[in-house]
Amino acid sequence: MAKDKKKKPQRPKAQNPRGFRDYFGAEVTERNAMLSRITEVYHAYGFDPLESPAVETVEALGKFLPDVDRPNEGVFAWQDDEDWVALRYDLTAPLARVYAQYRNELPTPYRRYSVGPVWRNEKPGPGRFRQFYQCDADTVGTPTVAADAEICGMLSDALEAVGIECGDYVVRVNNRKVLNGVMEVAGILDLSEPERFTTERGIVLRAIDKLDRLGPDGVRALLGKGRKDESGDYTDGANLSDEQTDIIMNFMDARRDDGAATCVRLRELVSASEIGMTGVLELETIAELSEAQGYGSDRILIDPSVVRGLGYYTGPVFEAELTFEILDEKGRPRQFGSVAGGGRYDDLVKRFTGQEVPATGISIGVDRLLAALREKSFKNNSEAGPVLVTVMDRDRMVDYQTIVAELRNAGLRAEVYLGNPKNFGNQLKYADTRNAPVAVIQGSDERDRGVVQIKDLALGKALAANIQSNEEWKAQPAQFEVARAELVDAIKKMIERANG
Amino acid sequence: MAKDKKKKPQRPKAQNPRGFRDYFGAEVTERNAMLSRITEVYHAYGFDPLESPAVETVEALGKFLPDVDRPNEGVFAWQDDEDWVALRYDLTAPLARVYAQYRNELPTPYRRYSVGPVWRNEKPGPGRFRQFYQCDADTVGTPTVAADAEICGMLSDALEAVGIECGDYVVRVNNRKVLNGVMEVAGILDLSEPERFTTERGIVLRAIDKLDRLGPDGVRALLGKGRKDESGDYTDGANLSDEQTDIIMNFMDARRDDGAATCVRLRELVSASEIGMTGVLELETIAELSEAQGYGSDRILIDPSVVRGLGYYTGPVFEAELTFEILDEKGRPRQFGSVAGGGRYDDLVKRFTGQEVPATGISIGVDRLLAALREKSFKNNSEAGPVLVTVMDRDRMVDYQTIVAELRNAGLRAEVYLGNPKNFGNQLKYADTRNAPVAVIQGSDERDRGVVQIKDLALGKALAANIQSNEEWKAQPAQFEVARAELVDAIKKMIERANG
Repeated sequence: MAKDKKKKPQRPKAQNPRGFRDYFGAEVTERNAMLSRITEVYHAYGFDPLESPAVETVEALGKFLPDVDRPNEGVFAWQDDEDWVALRYDLTAPLARVYAQYRNELPTPYRRYSVGPVWRNEKPGPGRFRQFYQCDADTVGTPTVAADAEICGMLSDALEAVGIECGDYVVRVNNRKVLNGVMEVAGILDLSEPERFTTERGIVLRAIDKLDRLGPDGVRALLGKGRKDESGDYTDGANLSDEQTDIIMNFMDARRDDGAATCVRLRELVSASEIGMTGVLELETIAELSEAQGYGSDRILIDPSVVRGLGYYTGPVFEAELTFEILDEKGRPRQFGSVAGGGRYDDLVKRFTGQEVPATGISIGVDRLLAALREKSFKNNSEAGPVLVTVMDRDRMVDYQTIVAELRNAGLRAEVYLGNPKNFGNQLKYADTRNAPVAVIQGSDERDRGVVQIKDLALGKALAANIQSNEEWKAQPAQFEVARAELVDAIKKMIERANG
Repeated sequence: MAKDKKKKPQRPKAQNPRGFRDYFGAEVTERNAMLSRITEVYHAYGFDPLESPAVETVEALGKFLPDVDRPNEGVFAWQDDEDWVALRYDLTAPLARVYAQYRNELPTPYRRYSVGPVWRNEKPGPGRFRQFYQCDADTVGTPTVAADAEICGMLSDALEAVGIECGDYVVRVNNRKVLNGVMEVAGILDLSEPERFTTERGIVLRAIDKLDRLGPDGVRALLGKGRKDESGDYTDGANLSDEQTDIIMNFMDARRDDGAATCVRLRELVSASEIGMTGVLELETIAELSEAQGYGSDRILIDPSVVRGLGYYTGPVFEAELTFEILDEKGRPRQFGSVAGGGRYDDLVKRFTGQEVPATGISIGVDRLLAALREKSFKNNSEAGPVLVTVMDRDRMVDYQTIVAELRNAGLRAEVYLGNPKNFGNQLKYADTRNAPVAVIQGSDERDRGVVQIKDLALGKALAANIQSNEEWKAQPAQFEVARAELVDAIKKMIERANG
C-alpha cells in the first residue's frame, strides 16, 4: 500500500506530438472525395494501385544513411533488432524498392499510383506538419517521352476531375536536358560530369526557379554578384560574366504562347549543345502529343523557367500551378501557385539492381490542392449534419430508433439523441453542434395523435441571423406538425429544398 | 579519387522490413471498396470521421510506458527531442486522447469512426503482419445502452452492406456485468475490487472464451484441476469446487434461441448478484431495441459465452462471427470465425481528465473481413485489366493515344503500350501480365483502309484453355476487324458481353 501511494498517478497530457494534427468530419470526407476522383482518373489510364507500408529499412530509403548512432536527418528512424528502419518520407523511394524487389513479376512498363501519408522529421511551423498526404503516379521502365506526355495529360484530367477548370491551372513542362544545354552554351557545365551540381550551377538553377518571385532584375543580380533582399539578407551570386548572364536571361525569356514556337526559340538558344538539342526534341514531342490530344497551351505549357529542385530529375520536369488569385494573409491578391510536380528520374532503381531503369512521375500536394478547392468552391460550406431525432420520453427509445431507421432507409443521414434527454435545451444545443438541418420531436401527446413535430433548424438559424419580415416567417414556419406516416417524405422535401 | 574508390558502393537490399508487406492492384481497390461501403453505413448513422496521426506520444498511448532506456513492448517507439513517441497500436487509444483534448468543442455524445493502419511491434509470423488496417466506430460520452444497441445494429448493417448475408453472420452480445455476477454467485469475485482480475478469474474467463474450441468437457477441466491438450501441454486449472464449476457451466448453457428467453434464464442464474442483475437488464434492453428494429436473433444474438479479452471492457461486449464454413489449410471444414469485436469501456478518457467518460464501440478486423469476402464471392475473380492499344508504328503515337482517349471518354479503362514496341510478342505478353481483356491493333495497312484489328484476349485465353469445337471458334473469332469509327462501340459490346 505504501508503494502504491508513492506511485501517485500523474495524468498524461492529452496532446498531439509536436507537428502532428487531427482531422475531423468534412476535413476527412472532402479529402477522401478528392483523392477518389483523382485515383479514378489514374485508374482509367491503366495505372494500378500500390500500397507499400509506412515503414522501410533506412538502407532501402537511401539518402538518409545511419551514422554512428542513429539517423535522424529528415526521417523518423529507429532500430529494429539489427536493422535501422524509418517512416517513409515520400512515395517514390518505396516505389523504387518495390520495383527492384518485384521486377520479374510486374509488367514492363509498370504504371502505378499510390496515395497515403508520408512523414518528415522537420521542425514543425505554422501550417507545416510532419505527417501529410501525397498522391503519386509513376511509369517505371520506359524511356519514351510518350510516358511523360501521358503523365502531363493525366495530371490535367485529374485537376479538372476535382473541379479546377481549364484556365484556372496550367501544367508547365520543361526539360533538364535543355537546362543543361543552356549551361553548356554558357560554359558552366562540366560535360564529363553532367549530373554533378557545382555551387555555380546550383545558384543558377535556384535563380531561374525564382523568376516568378524576384523578376528579371532579381534573377540577373543572382546570376552576377549577388543580391540583397528586403530584409537586408545577402545572397551570394553565381558571378557569371555579362555574356553568360545574357544567355541565361534569353533562355528564361524563351517562352512563347504555344509549345511549338517556344521550341523553335529554344533550338536557336541551345543549338551548340547536343544534350540541349536532345532535350528540345523531347519537349517538341511532348508538345505535339499533348496538342494532338486536345491539351492546348492553356492546359499544358512548355515553360523554360521550370526547375523543380536540384538533384534527382534527368529529363522532362512538370509543375502544375493554379493561376487564379487568392488573398494572402495580408489581404493582397496573389496566385495560388504550385499544387503538383514531377518529372523523369532514371537512377532511382539502379541503386538496388545496378541496372538503369527509366521512370517518370508526378506527385500531387494533397493538402495544398484541397486548400485550393476550399478557396474556390467549398468556402463557408461546411458539411450538413444528420437529421436529429430528439428524445422526449426515454422509455420510447424503440419509437425514436424506428424513426431514425426509416430516415436512413430513405437515404438520409440520421441519428437519435443519446445524451441525457432530461434537458431539451441540451438536445437542441447538440443539434447545433452537429450542424443538423432538421430536428424531429415526438412527445406522448404527439404520439397519441399520430403526428410528429419537425423543426427546420437550418431555416431557424437563417431566420435568427436575418429576420427580414414576418411574412416570410409565416410563409415558411421553422416548426410544423405532420402525420407520422408522412414524416420521411416531409423531411426529404425540406432537405431537397435546402440543397436546391 | 582514392577516397572514392574506398567507398565502393554496396547495393541496398530491395526488401520490406520484417513483418511488413506491399499490396498491389485489386488488393488495394477491393479493400478500399469494402471500407467505403462500411463507412457509408457509419456516416448514415450520424458518425463523423476522425483521422488522427500515426504518431502519438507514448505518454498519451498509455499502457506502454518508457522504461529506463526505450519502450518497445508492443509498440514502435523512438525519442523525439525530450519526448518518447510511438506508432499507434490501435484506434481507441488515439480516440481517448482526442476526446480529452477537444472535449469542449466536440458534441456530447460524440459518435466517430476511424479507418487506418495500426502498428504492432510483434514477432511477425505467417499471415501476421506488423502493420494492418482497423475500422472502428465508437460513441463517447453516454452511458445509455441504446448506444450499445445502435453499435450492434450498425455492425449488422455494415456486414450486410459489404455482402455478408443474414444467416452468414451473427453479432453475439454479452455483458461483463453478467459475467461478474456469475463470478459473484460462484464466490470468485472480490466485490471490493470488481475490476481486478485475479489469476482465478482470468483462468475462468479464458475457459469460457474457449467453449467453442474445447467443448464443455474441456472447459470443465480448465475450471477444475487443469487440462492436458493434444500436444501434451498442460494448462493449469482454476481449481474451482464442483459446485462452483456447475454454476459456470450452467451459465454457459444459458443461451436460448431468442434474446428474451436467454435473459429469463440469466435472471435465474444471477439473481443473487446485484451487478449481475444490472447486466441482465442491460442485455434485455439491447435485445428489445434490436428486436424492435428488425434485428432478430438471426442477426443479433444474446450469447453468454462471449468474453472478449480480459481487461478494458466494463459492460456490454460484442463479437461478430461469420458462420459459413470454409476449408482450413488441411482441407477440413470450419467456421470462418470472428471478424469484429468491441464493447463498453468507461475508463479510457479518465486517464487524461480524471472524469469518467462512458464509451462504447466496435472494431472491424479489416484483413479478416476482406479474406472472408474473397472466400465468399471474389474467388478466382481477379480485377479486369485495361484495354491495351498496341503500337505497330512508333511514329504514330498520336493516333494510338487518340484511340486510348476515346476509350476512356466512353468510360473504359485503357492504356497505350509504352515499352519498346519492336517485338510485338512482348506487347501481347505485356497484355497478359496486365490481364487486359482486349488488344487494339492498327498497322499502316489498317490505317490506310480506315479499320482496326480487335483481339479478344479473354476469349483467346478461354479458347486456349478449353477448345471445345471448331464451330465455337468460328462463331466467335478471337480477332476481327472493324471500321475505325466503330472501334469504341465494338469494344464496349465485347466487354459488356464478357461481364454479363
